[in-house]
Amino acid sequence: MKIETCLTPELISLHKLEGKIAVVTDVLRATSCMVAGLHAGIKSVIPVMTVQEALVYAEKGFVTAGERGGVKVEEFTIGNSPFEHMREEYHGKDICMTTTNGTVAITEARKSADQVVIGAMLNVSTVADYILKQGKDIAIICAGWKGNPSLEDTLFAGALIDRIIDKGEIIDDASFMALTQYRAANGNVDKVIQENASHAKRLSGLKAKSDLAYCATEDSCNVLPILKGDAISI
Amino acid sequence: MKIETCLTPELISLHKLEGKIAVVTDVLRATSCMVAGLHAGIKSVIPVMTVQEALVYAEKGFVTAGERGGVKVEEFTIGNSPFEHMREEYHGKDICMTTTNGTVAITEARKSADQVVIGAMLNVSTVADYILKQGKDIAIICAGWKGNPSLEDTLFAGALIDRIIDKGEIIDDASFMALTQYRAANGNVDKVIQENASHAKRLSGLKAKSDLAYCATEDSCNVLPILKGDAISI
Repeated sequence: MKIETCLTPELISLHKLEGKIAVVTDVLRATSCMVAGLHAGIKSVIPVMTVQEALVYAEKGFVTAGERGGVKVEEFTIGNSPFEHMREEYHGKDICMTTTNGTVAITEARKSADQVVIGAMLNVSTVADYILKQGKDIAIICAGWKGNPSLEDTLFAGALIDRIIDKGEIIDDASFMALTQYRAANGNVDKVIQENASHAKRLSGLKAKSDLAYCATEDSCNVLPILKGDAISI
Repeated sequence: MKIETCLTPELISLHKLEGKIAVVTDVLRATSCMVAGLHAGIKSVIPVMTVQEALVYAEKGFVTAGERGGVKVEEFTIGNSPFEHMREEYHGKDICMTTTNGTVAITEARKSADQVVIGAMLNVSTVADYILKQGKDIAIICAGWKGNPSLEDTLFAGALIDRIIDKGEIIDDASFMALTQYRAANGNVDKVIQENASHAKRLSGLKAKSDLAYCATEDSCNVLPILKGDAISI
């Protein structure tokens, strides 16, 4: 099982995803919302690239969710707080989501990967167990921030690699660096993100901090969201 | 003094270099060759993008140096071993160099940066002292490997940041991650590169290992190569 990591979608053309499982992550906060929402009871999530596409789904009765530049899209039902996605009123519903970084990464990965799995700190061990069972080569695709690598997504990559490395082989430097990053956090992923991630520095207010602390929690949602056709479900 | 890091030239368009000092590094091995060669006595190094350009310089009497895919270009005088660049017969000479990654990074950086400084593990403290004296914002541009981030260049970025962070402010996650990487190496940069860098795994033979060990040595050459016009000199 070969392991590679793409630190930002800008570099995805350097990775050959054919025959591989792509694990896409956007810890702050697209994939955390998906994992938390699906775990809570959302039926499915359709990721789309544009606000316009999402509004077409809105007309069909979908709940719409997402942000641009970190701010909720005005016409959408909800934004990108995982707690919004967990609300009881959305249980059993289909959501259409578009975000600045996360849905871009999913859209890029699905073009050639055999399968797209949605990863977040919230379900990292569940993803690891699945990968170990499949035994296929994997590429971890980090959404980053507007093309740049991000600390929180790199930490997810490291957290996943740490759980599978005994049965796998790292084939690029980005994977080794992600693993080092995660191990250096030494169990304090939440604190490391809060104090150092540029994303965390951009956020302010109690609500955002509570979102961030939740998204940095490892293994509170034992679900495995997988993209099937256009929709992500568990 | 703001500090940012570009992990590969593929991401350089995300960095605004205007008004900044760009420190370009390609530890294995373009900038290590430049630093070692200029320290030993080479007069200047002209970095060019193509083998064809270098051959035009050859006709003008320049020594030619460089590689493609890690292999010496057949028509060139020397390849990319720092020990070749240190030979007495090249002291006082002008060299024209083209490499797979390093000269690309220099060419990209010079387009908009105020100044381009050449960094390697070999001169990291000298570069740090210069940066601290200038007090200007800096962008560390890593050459990487064929578009991918590389461990050894990221470690250089971390080594430089470690020496200037008390007087500066990290403004992107890549810089924080580079610093973590360097500090996690805990004084064993050579060993970490030898055991984990994909570049090191591609190399074989005693000569390559000796090159690598030399390039991973911190502060054996106290020179500050700067690009002036088309040529790098100290």
